Amino acid sequence: MTPSQLTALENFHAVIPAGGVGTRLWPLSRAAAPKFLHDLTGSGSTLLRATYDRLHPLAGDRMMVVTGVAHREAVCHQLPEVPDSELVLESEPKDSAAAIGLAAAILHRRDPSIIMGSFAADHVISPDQTFQAAVREAILTAAPAEDSEGKIVTIGIEPSHPSTGFGYIRIGEALSVAGAPHAHSVVEFVEKPDQATAEKYLKSGDFSWNAGMFVAPVALMLKHLEKNEPELYAGLNEIAEAWDTDQRGEVTARIWPTLPKIAIDYAVAEPAAAAGDVAVIPAAFRWDDVGDFAAIGRLNSANEVDDVTVLGEGARVFTEDASGVVVTDTKRVIALIGIDDVVIVDTPDALLVTTTAHAQRVKAAVDALKANGDMDVL
Amino acid sequence: MTPSQLTALENFHAVIPAGGVGTRLWPLSRAAAPKFLHDLTGSGSTLLRATYDRLHPLAGDRMMVVTGVAHREAVCHQLPEVPDSELVLESEPKDSAAAIGLAAAILHRRDPSIIMGSFAADHVISPDQTFQAAVREAILTAAPAEDSEGKIVTIGIEPSHPSTGFGYIRIGEALSVAGAPHAHSVVEFVEKPDQATAEKYLKSGDFSWNAGMFVAPVALMLKHLEKNEPELYAGLNEIAEAWDTDQRGEVTARIWPTLPKIAIDYAVAEPAAAAGDVAVIPAAFRWDDVGDFAAIGRLNSANEVDDVTVLGEGARVFTEDASGVVVTDTKRVIALIGIDDVVIVDTPDALLVTTTAHAQRVKAAVDALKANGDMDVL
Repeated sequence: MTPSQLTALENFHAVIPAGGVGTRLWPLSRAAAPKFLHDLTGSGSTLLRATYDRLHPLAGDRMMVVTGVAHREAVCHQLPEVPDSELVLESEPKDSAAAIGLAAAILHRRDPSIIMGSFAADHVISPDQTFQAAVREAILTAAPAEDSEGKIVTIGIEPSHPSTGFGYIRIGEALSVAGAPHAHSVVEFVEKPDQATAEKYLKSGDFSWNAGMFVAPVALMLKHLEKNEPELYAGLNEIAEAWDTDQRGEVTARIWPTLPKIAIDYAVAEPAAAAGDVAVIPAAFRWDDVGDFAAIGRLNSANEVDDVTVLGEGARVFTEDASGVVVTDTKRVIALIGIDDVVIVDTPDALLVTTTAHAQRVKAAVDALKANGDMDVL
Repeated sequence: MTPSQLTALENFHAVIPAGGVGTRLWPLSRAAAPKFLHDLTGSGSTLLRATYDRLHPLAGDRMMVVTGVAHREAVCHQLPEVPDSELVLESEPKDSAAAIGLAAAILHRRDPSIIMGSFAADHVISPDQTFQAAVREAILTAAPAEDSEGKIVTIGIEPSHPSTGFGYIRIGEALSVAGAPHAHSVVEFVEKPDQATAEKYLKSGDFSWNAGMFVAPVALMLKHLEKNEPELYAGLNEIAEAWDTDQRGEVTARIWPTLPKIAIDYAVAEPAAAAGDVAVIPAAFRWDDVGDFAAIGRLNSANEVDDVTVLGEGARVFTEDASGVVVTDTKRVIALIGIDDVVIVDTPDALLVTTTAHAQRVKAAVDALKANGDMDVL
């Protein structure tokens, strides 16, 4: 490894946005206990903790978490090693450009040579080593050189099926980057396709799934943010200047509520791709965003009672001629008789019964409960 | 009405056997809270209370309840008007011949001219007036005359479909009984038939369902019991002699555990029918023994949330594209999405999910839970 490669890896700082309720996993996941605070794989670790542990070999203690102020205590409980200075608390959700942009701005003020990597707190990845190898390639590909400001590098997931639930990355030509043999340019990001388009994408071999993971020099991130969202950029910079001072609370309270809401995809990734500043490391690790309860079945196939996948410590499940998924955080006896592909989510104050085929419709149900004023269980 | 008819009606004394866990209604119905202690029709009354109220216009306060000692408090809470002398507590279940026979023996010692009527505590009947009219006919048919010891009279339910879940009564010739125009002799009782036989029965018009209700002079009941089960008869008589004395507890504790277990059908009804001593009043009231959760759907069709029948005070059920039955005695939100003919029974410590088609299999599940040692929820 060359000295400049070593420097790039040493400049890496991980950022974990821990937001999003995970409405499609209601009633397990909800405002007070979002998806990232659950162990959805039966591993014994919450998704947040597993994300931290997966990044630790790459970033050491250089790890920042961005989350809602309501989750402060739960996040600190999960990650006691994260100091207050690395915990960015949002008083209200402002979408991903503000969350990730603030992390970039704070890190840039501390050290403008930092290469940040942003990885959602609620995805399931395995094996860790394959993921870490891809991120190392991404860091080396992202690193600025004498003649370049570096790249914004996304990790592309090799599609296993023609999913219509994810955005795609159109992969361009191979890049010649020492230590990053898989690096390619990105032609464009494309939105969730219809079925026929997804099948075309898969067949072509030119597309990866966009898992929303990227690695980039903070300076390059902020350059694109400034260009595309100058108001957001200015606000984030003002907060960042106050961050490591005793003005943090006052400035954040004043400015954060005024910031525009926009996704990082629109504020940075897509325009940067159009400008030729985005690369991709296509990677073959197993990735799951645990988008619904059908995923729980896939991710926990080892924990089966007959043909029923069971997730839940101390679960007491009795099945007879049944198949599907049971998620429980109660100790109730659950008996399933003569019912197939059922999804049962059993919590102290809410019970969901649906089928694996209809698991995606849980979000609509939650919207209806909200409209009905059943806020106590959301 | 003639004086002898009036005397017969005045001699009527109702007996309500309140036994049986109702295993097919687990986890709602269970050892600690059997079927008769639940309101399964949304009427606001438990089945036991509704049975008492249905018999009160016929029997007034002449009403005896036979139940397990464990249910004493619950039964007294439901029926505060029943005095201690009319509450027969079984220290252990001894099947219906002992339960009903003891009631007959106690009543016979008090007044040998009593005509008893036995009606299970956990059936649903409507309208009450049609039932009461049939029982009145049964009393008049049962009444002894100068030249006869009277009859054991069963109430036959007009079959609505070729059920294989009930026993049948083969109806004989019409009897000429003043005030009982529907009275017929009984040729025989027949066991639960197979489908083809049930269809044949229905088509012939000569059969009623056997709902286990009968009206009979206590003297005639005891005569048949003595003939068929002399050991049981002797034991019951010994308890009955001590019943209204301060020896009741001691004698009952000594003798009850030694009594043979046999159903009243074998000990009295079938042999009495063979001897030509049984009559039937075929009746057309609506009768349901609430044999499984599919019955809950039938009996509560007014309480529908979309296509889902909901039973439970304060139930919070949200449905989308779902049908079936929800029974809950919790206040949890229950969301059903994209699932048909489902049966959900939600209790604080146990949850059952099955389908209306498989509702009869709940008993097997309970047996399996028992075998597994999950006694806390049975």
